[in-house]
Amino acid sequence: MIREVAQVSIKPDSHAEFEIALARAHTEILPHVTGLIEFVPVGWCVERPHVYMFTIDWETLEAHMVGFRESENFSAWRTLIGPYFEGPATVEHFSL
Amino acid sequence: MIREVAQVSIKPDSHAEFEIALARAHTEILPHVTGLIEFVPVGWCVERPHVYMFTIDWETLEAHMVGFRESENFSAWRTLIGPYFEGPATVEHFSL
Repeated sequence: MIREVAQVSIKPDSHAEFEIALARAHTEILPHVTGLIEFVPVGWCVERPHVYMFTIDWETLEAHMVGFRESENFSAWRTLIGPYFEGPATVEHFSL
Repeated sequence: MIREVAQVSIKPDSHAEFEIALARAHTEILPHVTGLIEFVPVGWCVERPHVYMFTIDWETLEAHMVGFRESENFSAWRTLIGPYFEGPATVEHFSL
């Protein structure tokens, strides 16, 4: 099992809208993604207040980087939450 | 509730010893720490193989930064796991 740890800087005036979009993406898109075990919306960073962290546990690294990233589900996910990003997300993986 | 996210670079030849020390610190020290809800040894980073992540959920930020950091439990914790660190840990907090 692999934990994706994603940190995204969100436009300062869009925090509430981003949370709504993320919740929608979570319920509408992620249930259809193969190899996804659990999505956790961790929350806002105390030290960097515009940074939001979420984690996703995957069955394998490939389930995320190939199966999801190259799918239409990823396009739909990014269409929903991408407009609120200020710059690219920082994504790393940790082996559990 | 606050999640501490800690990332520590561990000396290349000390990964196994660090994991043993961390498990010992977890079982011997953390149960005595006030305001600590849950410790999770997340694991090793895929992209930066010498980096280990753990998270600790705290009742409040102060429980970590004041109650724990200024206690003898913190000295004992650092004495156990500190020798394996390569440089300072990166620690941030996220509001759940």
